[in-house]
Amino acid sequence: MSVATARDIPDATVARLPIYRRSLVELVALGQSTVSSARLAELAGVNAAKVRKDLSYLGTYGVRGVGYDVEYLLAQVGEVLGLDVEAPVVIVGMGNLGQALAHYGGFSSRGFPVVALVDASMEKVGVSIGGIEVAHIDSLPEIVNRLSVSVGIIATPGDAAQEVADALVDAGVRSILTFAPTVIQVPDSVPLRKVDVATELQILSYYQQRGTGETNRTA
Amino acid sequence: MSVATARDIPDATVARLPIYRRSLVELVALGQSTVSSARLAELAGVNAAKVRKDLSYLGTYGVRGVGYDVEYLLAQVGEVLGLDVEAPVVIVGMGNLGQALAHYGGFSSRGFPVVALVDASMEKVGVSIGGIEVAHIDSLPEIVNRLSVSVGIIATPGDAAQEVADALVDAGVRSILTFAPTVIQVPDSVPLRKVDVATELQILSYYQQRGTGETNRTA
Repeated sequence: MSVATARDIPDATVARLPIYRRSLVELVALGQSTVSSARLAELAGVNAAKVRKDLSYLGTYGVRGVGYDVEYLLAQVGEVLGLDVEAPVVIVGMGNLGQALAHYGGFSSRGFPVVALVDASMEKVGVSIGGIEVAHIDSLPEIVNRLSVSVGIIATPGDAAQEVADALVDAGVRSILTFAPTVIQVPDSVPLRKVDVATELQILSYYQQRGTGETNRTA
Repeated sequence: MSVATARDIPDATVARLPIYRRSLVELVALGQSTVSSARLAELAGVNAAKVRKDLSYLGTYGVRGVGYDVEYLLAQVGEVLGLDVEAPVVIVGMGNLGQALAHYGGFSSRGFPVVALVDASMEKVGVSIGGIEVAHIDSLPEIVNRLSVSVGIIATPGDAAQEVADALVDAGVRSILTFAPTVIQVPDSVPLRKVDVATELQILSYYQQRGTGETNRTA
């Protein structure tokens, strides 16, 4: 992990690494062994100078006229992101969103197997969703411990989110992704990211009225 | 709209405006007429200097010892974001995610009423979801025109996303939010934002292995 810990990588660069990774996976599937910064930029939807700058934080520089080694770069990005270790996920809240996430196939293939689903309602407990039986939220500490869960996803209504976040932290998850449209507080040691669809729409609204597509980034 | 068009607001500031807005709405509900940058920062999960800097782009400066006028600031942020005009939404793709989005109650109250749902499968067409009857994707141009749809949300599998994006652009939507885990291309005039849950998890993974919560931002 020397690369990952050697220096601080800017947040904006970290946010683009998964995009580069996705593009590199596509290139591997296409059988391409090298890629230029221009081509990688095109696939990732950013400009080439930014690609070169971002990858320089990994200590990686392309070879002029040849570009980057796809397999090597893919391994390096994965290592920096910590994807060489699986991070089991628990989803809290089995409403429409939680069920959609439980059925979403893209987690396991990217190192985040969904291993548990929980809800506070006894009507949901015991129901099988996507092949996993829903457990009661009170068993969270036991589940997190037994299944080595490291990531908690909050898919509850906003008014339950803080309580759920506290329960996840107490149970020992190491990071949290929340979809609840409220501000929640967690200890500094627990990374938290928020996905709020209405927020995304408001950001789009700003650029829409300005008539520019320059927000074309991944949230 | 003089404020919104007077200068370019940095992307990172634009991305925080909806968070400030949400905090201001909470303050209104609590009956608070003024707010300090420190308090607003706490509610929004950023530091106070960043709040002051962000709001200065709106031409707004708090009064020392008093802070900002909550109602005025809320109106101003809404105007800059273009929220004074409703932006009707169509959701494309009625799988689990599309259905979750169709049921999500947070759009209308924030100026983005979901007015149409479409799918390519005849099995879904005619089904009522959240009170709206699913239409066939071939009727997209007619729907967008008749209901003045300005935002398209793509909730299809990745392999259909580009085709859907093209159809949305051709039909005349003005901005697109995509949940599909693939890179899609749209004209520069159409703002595009991407929400990719696996990407969020990979970003979390980076901060988790570093043992820091400094990614505590809204995606």
